[in-house]
Amino acid sequence: MINIKEDSKLNVLNHSCAHLMAQAIKRLYPSAMFWVGPVIEEGFYYDIDLNGGVITEEDLPKIEKEMKKLAKDGKRIVRRELTKDEALEMFKNDKYKVDLIKDMTDDTVISAYTQGDFTDLCRGPHVESVKLLKNFKLLKTSGAYYKGDSKNQMLTRIYGVCFETKEELEKHLTELEEAKLRDHRKIGKDLGIYFIDDLVGRGLPMYLPNGFILWNELETYIRNKEIKNGYKHVLTPPLGNVNLYKTSGHLEHYKDAMFPIMEVEDEEYVLRPMNCPHHMMIYGHDLHSYKDLPIRIAEIARDSRYEASGALKGIERLRSFCQNDAHIFCTPEQIEEEFKNVVDLILECYKELNITEYTFELSLRDKNDKVKYHPDDEMWDNAEERLRKVMDDIGLPYVEKIGEAAFYGPKLDVQVKPAVGNPITISTCQIDFCLPTKFDLKYVDSDGQKKTPVVLHRAVFGSIDRFIAYYLEETKGILPLWLAPTQISILPVNNEYHLEYAKDIYNKLNELFRCELNSKDEKLSYRMREAQTSKLPLTLILGDKEKEESLISYRMFGSRETNTLSLDEFITYVNDRIKSKN
Amino acid sequence: MINIKEDSKLNVLNHSCAHLMAQAIKRLYPSAMFWVGPVIEEGFYYDIDLNGGVITEEDLPKIEKEMKKLAKDGKRIVRRELTKDEALEMFKNDKYKVDLIKDMTDDTVISAYTQGDFTDLCRGPHVESVKLLKNFKLLKTSGAYYKGDSKNQMLTRIYGVCFETKEELEKHLTELEEAKLRDHRKIGKDLGIYFIDDLVGRGLPMYLPNGFILWNELETYIRNKEIKNGYKHVLTPPLGNVNLYKTSGHLEHYKDAMFPIMEVEDEEYVLRPMNCPHHMMIYGHDLHSYKDLPIRIAEIARDSRYEASGALKGIERLRSFCQNDAHIFCTPEQIEEEFKNVVDLILECYKELNITEYTFELSLRDKNDKVKYHPDDEMWDNAEERLRKVMDDIGLPYVEKIGEAAFYGPKLDVQVKPAVGNPITISTCQIDFCLPTKFDLKYVDSDGQKKTPVVLHRAVFGSIDRFIAYYLEETKGILPLWLAPTQISILPVNNEYHLEYAKDIYNKLNELFRCELNSKDEKLSYRMREAQTSKLPLTLILGDKEKEESLISYRMFGSRETNTLSLDEFITYVNDRIKSKN
Repeated sequence: MINIKEDSKLNVLNHSCAHLMAQAIKRLYPSAMFWVGPVIEEGFYYDIDLNGGVITEEDLPKIEKEMKKLAKDGKRIVRRELTKDEALEMFKNDKYKVDLIKDMTDDTVISAYTQGDFTDLCRGPHVESVKLLKNFKLLKTSGAYYKGDSKNQMLTRIYGVCFETKEELEKHLTELEEAKLRDHRKIGKDLGIYFIDDLVGRGLPMYLPNGFILWNELETYIRNKEIKNGYKHVLTPPLGNVNLYKTSGHLEHYKDAMFPIMEVEDEEYVLRPMNCPHHMMIYGHDLHSYKDLPIRIAEIARDSRYEASGALKGIERLRSFCQNDAHIFCTPEQIEEEFKNVVDLILECYKELNITEYTFELSLRDKNDKVKYHPDDEMWDNAEERLRKVMDDIGLPYVEKIGEAAFYGPKLDVQVKPAVGNPITISTCQIDFCLPTKFDLKYVDSDGQKKTPVVLHRAVFGSIDRFIAYYLEETKGILPLWLAPTQISILPVNNEYHLEYAKDIYNKLNELFRCELNSKDEKLSYRMREAQTSKLPLTLILGDKEKEESLISYRMFGSRETNTLSLDEFITYVNDRIKSKN
Repeated sequence: MINIKEDSKLNVLNHSCAHLMAQAIKRLYPSAMFWVGPVIEEGFYYDIDLNGGVITEEDLPKIEKEMKKLAKDGKRIVRRELTKDEALEMFKNDKYKVDLIKDMTDDTVISAYTQGDFTDLCRGPHVESVKLLKNFKLLKTSGAYYKGDSKNQMLTRIYGVCFETKEELEKHLTELEEAKLRDHRKIGKDLGIYFIDDLVGRGLPMYLPNGFILWNELETYIRNKEIKNGYKHVLTPPLGNVNLYKTSGHLEHYKDAMFPIMEVEDEEYVLRPMNCPHHMMIYGHDLHSYKDLPIRIAEIARDSRYEASGALKGIERLRSFCQNDAHIFCTPEQIEEEFKNVVDLILECYKELNITEYTFELSLRDKNDKVKYHPDDEMWDNAEERLRKVMDDIGLPYVEKIGEAAFYGPKLDVQVKPAVGNPITISTCQIDFCLPTKFDLKYVDSDGQKKTPVVLHRAVFGSIDRFIAYYLEETKGILPLWLAPTQISILPVNNEYHLEYAKDIYNKLNELFRCELNSKDEKLSYRMREAQTSKLPLTLILGDKEKEESLISYRMFGSRETNTLSLDEFITYVNDRIKSKN
């Protein structure tokens, strides 16, 4: 979806629309006073003190109607510049504006914008006339503390969005609806995947039984894939001595994203934000010959990062999550092949998971930025050239992003385009010449010399948590058979006659697959609807014919067609579908 | 092994033996001075200032010889009581004794013990004569800071042990040797299971690839077992808001074992010492009817506890570990059946893992202790009676331990008797009437009333970490086939002639099992020894006959017998052994 704050035209349009909304509200609720009304990624909002009055979402059409009327009047929007004293005089009856003005320095050029009978303190700019504000929609209301402080009064926040054309607005509203339906927070709740509760903690996900099944299938899938590709899995603890992060440089470069330090006896510990240092220690624990390389260390690793509570979002952005991480230790000569192997693995997984819309971004250094980047031009040129070569050899298109590299080396990000919203990075592969040096890692080369290996950091799923969020949104929660928490719902047509047969089938199938027996005292049609609502991939309907002929009949999710076959045939069919990940 | 400190007779004997050692050392190293020489679980030690001299383990036989000579002389050990001033006068040339005496109150009765030419300040008691000190052994030396402070001088600590009879001593020394061989820290290192490094942190285990395989097999085993028994697995974060532990009571009762609190924005977070509160929240997340109960929530859950660094031991006692935990929420009527199910599950796992030596302990409250125990006699009587009934029904012997119950309810501990050392608790099942109330958990009963469920806390493996420590010691690292990190080592007799065939077999078998191809440029006998040293369960030896007739020959670990069969037969054989966990 479009980022309205970052689109200069829409930014102004939405800002003016916030004023129009305020003008309308002032007409409908004369005692209303206004705090701030900024443009945000999704449109605009205004925080309003209704002086004891209430505006709910049911009132929004009325306000919209008033806004339309004002827009039709077509008043010009006029800017006027004021000194601080003039401004204080003009808004002397408005404690919120006075508050804002008082915080300004004496030499600030203060401006006010007037449209008809409404004047607001504002930096602007604005559109010329309210008549340009035709294609808007008020979206929702919420409470917001004055200055964001929970000790202060609660204001009413009203959100809206405005476009230049009716078509753009409608397209946007459709996308919003779609996004709401696809929101992993909604689907995650509906399917019993996870919940987050303030008593447990913000950004700390609690995966429910259904969520664990999904998680475990994905974890097992990627782990087996990695084992097949020569990765060795390890298990390392979710925290470390602060000295580990002094050695790695995280404490210097990454402290803002780390949890507070804990003092334990005479030492300091910290939850790890990344597990790279632990994996460096694993490599360093043994002596290595060039013959042993590449060594591929993998882990579904628990990491914890401090994120502002406002930045948290479902299981997409958390404070505690598990990365599908690996570090490949190789000789400089092996970089290309290992890099290619990683890209192949990523593409193989995307294919199997039916992820088809993605692009590659090669993040390179900014040659002029000698502060951010490890100052070794030869290393950088060499590494960047080789990455390009790998990408060219694979023959996949990519875009180069100057200045987007990590401080320690260039990287490839795979950007996935979701059905709704902006592209997100799921997979990454980064070349690192720094960390192995910091941990003094070595291998004995064929010439008997001790040399420093290169490290590739890579993730296929990013974090399992974020991947689940993405995948729920992509599939709208209609999970493929192999991932579905319940794979088969078994319905006896009539409990009196068919329950025993259904139980027999359930007992047999449940040994092999994740099944439920739905023999609730409800009509068949009701129970079939339940299976659809829960998005269960396969529903078995067992009645007279099935019982008498020892058959089973099934329906696929979303289909009205019923197939009848023997139990053995059905088992083969389900196994085939699981194997092919359909 | 016997706890010498707690055996009153051996305690005195060992204490006297420490004096005998000091006397011998004083003769051999006249400038030696002595700090403290206490009795410990393993025998005795004495901390000695050698005044620049050195005693290494090579010197111990010489000291033992001198001790034997002194014992033969058979001097009596004579007690003399002193005032503080007299004691200060007597030991005025010994700064260590002066230090000890100065710390005593003026009215302490101070005693000194003399045997021949040697007098030591000591509370006693001692044996009558040194001639009783015949069956001793000096075990090792180490450094120890004066008063345990690393800013002070380093003293020499010499450890020893003494028994009444030669037979007892010899039995003990054999056990010590055995324990050393079985020490999981040694086996864990030899087999590449894990390591611990101060830079990562004390008590924070790093599982290496072999360790992860072992871990993952055990985790998968117990999880599948639990799923079959109706448990639902979840995944919850390794930390929580402090309010969660205020609600549960952990912050009040368990704070000493918790990591320091972390401030995050305006909240407080802490690494969780137990995951019970998280599971209470999982239950509380949904409404439940009596028809849904019992609900069995399971997790291989990462917990963290503060342990003093001195108390840490390999992966047996850690600061970060994973419990094989579960909480069963049931109606009061279901307690007995659920409890019995747990005991059955424990016994089934023990049988499959070949754990045969164990006893049951029923930990009950002390009726007179109204402070420690939740004051509800009716609840306690009821719960304890029902536990007894379950145990009687199962027909397994148990001992009752009064005053060993948790504060919230009685429990069953399963004590496993290891090959060496004292019994340890591996499994537990505890009845809890408190926590559900604290979290206000409810179910709707058949009468429409909201009622509070009972919780059973249970663990089969305790923590996976500790179970691995125990299991490595029990098996001396000779892991059963299903758990072995490498299951099959494939050896071509001669690389020139048989390597291709061996590679072919390796490629086929490695799809199914964990294999290595050992085609190092070494003699077959050398490579066969390698397989034995690494304790690999199966070694394939592929030579002319095998290649020509498309057969394979294998040896089991520890056997000199070679079996020859077809590849398919071998695959069946391996699968059968894995399935039967042999």
